[in-house]
Amino acid sequence: MHKAIVLLSGGLDSAVTAAIAVSKEGAQNVAFLHVNYGQRTEARELRSFNELSDHYGVEKRLVADISYLKEIGGSALTDESIDVPAHGGTDAVPVTYVPFRNAHLLSIAVSWAEVLGATEVYIGAVEEDSSGYPDCREGFFNAFTSVVSLGTKPGSGISIKTPLIHMRKSEIVKKGLALAAPLRLTWSCYKDSELACGVCDSCALRLRGFGEAGEADPIPYAAHGAS
Amino acid sequence: MHKAIVLLSGGLDSAVTAAIAVSKEGAQNVAFLHVNYGQRTEARELRSFNELSDHYGVEKRLVADISYLKEIGGSALTDESIDVPAHGGTDAVPVTYVPFRNAHLLSIAVSWAEVLGATEVYIGAVEEDSSGYPDCREGFFNAFTSVVSLGTKPGSGISIKTPLIHMRKSEIVKKGLALAAPLRLTWSCYKDSELACGVCDSCALRLRGFGEAGEADPIPYAAHGAS
Repeated sequence: MHKAIVLLSGGLDSAVTAAIAVSKEGAQNVAFLHVNYGQRTEARELRSFNELSDHYGVEKRLVADISYLKEIGGSALTDESIDVPAHGGTDAVPVTYVPFRNAHLLSIAVSWAEVLGATEVYIGAVEEDSSGYPDCREGFFNAFTSVVSLGTKPGSGISIKTPLIHMRKSEIVKKGLALAAPLRLTWSCYKDSELACGVCDSCALRLRGFGEAGEADPIPYAAHGAS
Repeated sequence: MHKAIVLLSGGLDSAVTAAIAVSKEGAQNVAFLHVNYGQRTEARELRSFNELSDHYGVEKRLVADISYLKEIGGSALTDESIDVPAHGGTDAVPVTYVPFRNAHLLSIAVSWAEVLGATEVYIGAVEEDSSGYPDCREGFFNAFTSVVSLGTKPGSGISIKTPLIHMRKSEIVKKGLALAAPLRLTWSCYKDSELACGVCDSCALRLRGFGEAGEADPIPYAAHGAS
């Protein structure tokens, strides 16, 4: 009996979301879902997913491959010819945006939930203190909930949970530490897989979050990013 | 410059939808998208997709693989241990329903549309004279349109077109013939790939549509289904 699906990329936000789901539902009642989409750090993120799943003793796991997103391209994360920029660009929607990605992630989670009989889908999206991706906004998730209600079997009763949506990164760090989430196992860097670059949008937001929380980030950074 | 994406499974409905899109937008302005999801007749449907694309001279094609839907299972189309029933069951939602499938198809089409700059996504869903799948209802597509508007870049302006949604099968057949769609190249059978079985839900609805239209179905059927 699996009550909840957790979308777990292996980054800070999804790891804290997993910690919240496990604390609320119990590790034996959750299933972890990871999606490879041809992103630069795919193998590193998968390693974090497996290590986090092992940590929580979650046996029910699915790794889905949607590498067609790499073929579609249009993002610095899936197209090697587009550079991953340093944090601080002024574009409303940065080039690291993967077009409509979260709709794919949610669709997979909802299909799996419907078959397992799960009623909750957790996703660690953040609107407040984020990169400005359109598919990370609360309105998107609310609209998607209507789609789920209309597009699944009557009575499936699946809802989308976004526990971090209005948190700042520093609050996410604190929440993770309060729940004893193994943040050393997470990976957030968009660009590199050995040492986090420290300068991409994802690293910069993460480092700022740890800094504002007054905590040390336990993952290794390249020298120029470890300031 | 591709203005429209057409989801083309290779069945009757999607072929007529492609004919409508080509007649409205021009073959040079459309891109055809096919999705393999581990269904029983995957190879046969892909053949129809390619033959239909060749017929229309559409060069811009994408074949996306979401075989995780087979791993998720829960449908007679993707799980060989669940029999494809003959037409006429009384279940509100038949076992051939693939959980939330159309959300996956639309998500892929929308991501591709966003990258290509296309503003229309055509899907050949039918609510009126169909199997009763929840993700084939007009309300589902309307709700999905809101998700697209909220979850893509501002100004992307992508809309979902469901030209067949309120048509009976007989009207779809007539529309296809009026547009000279090559219906001989299509494949609808859920079960078999050489001769259509003639008795599954999809064959039965198709045969009734041709019958009501007073037209002969040009594809080959097994003897017991060709009545």
